[in-house]
Amino acid sequence: MADGAGAGMAVDIADQPEVFTRLVEPTQAKAIAEVAATVAGRAPRQVVFAARGISDNAARYAAYLCEVRLGLPAGLTSPSAMTVFGARPDLSGALVVGVSRTGTSPDLAQVLQIARGSGALTLALTNDPGSALAGAAELVVDIGAGAERAVAATKTYTAELLALLMLVEGIRAGHGALPPGERAALAVLPELAALTIADPTAPELAARYRLVDRIVTTGRGYAYPTAREAALKLMETSYLASMALSGADLLHGPLAMTYPGVPVLAVVGAGPGGRSMREVLARLESRRADVVAVGAGAVDRPAARLRVPALEERHAPLLDILPLQRFALALALARGQDPDGPGGPRQAAGRGEEF
Amino acid sequence: MADGAGAGMAVDIADQPEVFTRLVEPTQAKAIAEVAATVAGRAPRQVVFAARGISDNAARYAAYLCEVRLGLPAGLTSPSAMTVFGARPDLSGALVVGVSRTGTSPDLAQVLQIARGSGALTLALTNDPGSALAGAAELVVDIGAGAERAVAATKTYTAELLALLMLVEGIRAGHGALPPGERAALAVLPELAALTIADPTAPELAARYRLVDRIVTTGRGYAYPTAREAALKLMETSYLASMALSGADLLHGPLAMTYPGVPVLAVVGAGPGGRSMREVLARLESRRADVVAVGAGAVDRPAARLRVPALEERHAPLLDILPLQRFALALALARGQDPDGPGGPRQAAGRGEEF
Repeated sequence: MADGAGAGMAVDIADQPEVFTRLVEPTQAKAIAEVAATVAGRAPRQVVFAARGISDNAARYAAYLCEVRLGLPAGLTSPSAMTVFGARPDLSGALVVGVSRTGTSPDLAQVLQIARGSGALTLALTNDPGSALAGAAELVVDIGAGAERAVAATKTYTAELLALLMLVEGIRAGHGALPPGERAALAVLPELAALTIADPTAPELAARYRLVDRIVTTGRGYAYPTAREAALKLMETSYLASMALSGADLLHGPLAMTYPGVPVLAVVGAGPGGRSMREVLARLESRRADVVAVGAGAVDRPAARLRVPALEERHAPLLDILPLQRFALALALARGQDPDGPGGPRQAAGRGEEF
Repeated sequence: MADGAGAGMAVDIADQPEVFTRLVEPTQAKAIAEVAATVAGRAPRQVVFAARGISDNAARYAAYLCEVRLGLPAGLTSPSAMTVFGARPDLSGALVVGVSRTGTSPDLAQVLQIARGSGALTLALTNDPGSALAGAAELVVDIGAGAERAVAATKTYTAELLALLMLVEGIRAGHGALPPGERAALAVLPELAALTIADPTAPELAARYRLVDRIVTTGRGYAYPTAREAALKLMETSYLASMALSGADLLHGPLAMTYPGVPVLAVVGAGPGGRSMREVLARLESRRADVVAVGAGAVDRPAARLRVPALEERHAPLLDILPLQRFALALALARGQDPDGPGGPRQAAGRGEEF
């Protein structure tokens, strides 16, 4: 293991309170509010997201928000339907959002071009407002997360989440600006994020799971993208066989995989989504899985907990992922890997730009 | 291992040519055509699917078909947005399709009720036309697959795929009936399915992977649901850590997991989707993953092949899953498990009805 392994990822993780601060401060908040006001003025009938990797997870969170908070049908499209099979869906009246930290994937830009050609309102949400994706879109939201040091993305993920949340709540408000209650909730985020990141539990937990080969992650509703992102981070940094399953899906067939002692990271919020995990948690307990409770929700007798300050479930994803990022980093180091430049346990490899 | 372990699943798998025959014969085909004609007459602006488990995979295939063949935006909804968080998206002008083999999940029926209340055209596609899901929908398609013997679903999955394909192509035709070319292509399906199932390669391959703990499955476009369904079958029957990744997603971060010798089931069709897998396959080869080529597409130097008769890629999912079902069954038996009634390697457990 190289000296300083994981140092870049550690700095990226530690940057997140500052990234949150910049997003909620007037300059960036005003830019997002202007985009939100434009979208609200166009009154889209549905929202379609195009994204990959970490941005796919952020887009799932945003699609859920659109359904619950805006009452708009929302979902993710498969870019290949348009770019490989020539699909030309009629997207007039739709808001089509490309989410990508670098904005360099040519097929996401192509999806926005096709969508724009069919009458959609197009929006690029990216860390590079000079990217091809941004160039293809009518509207651009810059997540302003700064350069990421590690290959495994952390601060760009949470910056995407927060920018998407601010966008959706701005659209909901109509005039783009966040209502006072929402603004107050987001104003304390940087401090809560700093507290969450400072908690030593996640790195301590890595020792417990140093030798496992597989891990299951689960969550429902707003928490499901967190479960997916945690699994992705563990794949990327520790080469674990990581399987993210929604609580509802896990309950059925795949529960067969959860033999006694298998580690399960269960993201459980303090609200209806968390409560809807009760049956899943009871079944996992009866199977003697090794359940790590992540988040502010109630979980009886977990093997371990990654505690996070209690927030409304629609805000919780901004914090819940933080200890999981730290866990992935610590686990990679405990396993002798360098999460700053992974490419598999045996060899280096060129990496795509999406992660 | 019980005597006769896997006998039920073997019979279900062998039933599939007969299930295909019944679906394409006049009685069931006419019933589907009538539903398709009604949908075409209502000219929906978008299609939203609600499904879980195997039916989620079938719905992904159908959403892709809707985008490519109908030019309609299509995607999957998260039922919990409506049933747990009270989302009430405006679905007027949408076709909302609940897909479920048993039709008993109360939250899928609730999604259809809410959708119907907001002005959507609702459709239940199920193996039980007397189910709650069917009762909640304006239109019903009975997949007519008959009773399934094993807990791990096989023939209901392919019956869902074929019924969804006939529905979409009937909507495309406008009057509901399949055009002659499509009818001819589907008429030979039962025979091709029987040939595919008779191929001994899949069970032979199980010996090669008897001791592995993880497996990666991949595919793009129409082939991606097959990769997901294969991973689900392997989780359910063999308790493998099975990870399904789209070709595009695998190329980036998760490629780190594909160390030398890791088994990768790559579903590669004979068409643009299969050709778009070239870069993925080259990267897997350079990492010395153990690639099993599944389907009719060109793959250089795979470790093994599960050959399937060449069909257009939009039809290929009806055959490509067949050797993978047989592989899952044989692998479970080789590992001393009974795939007819799985509940994990250590204990029996009640099973949900969706799988």
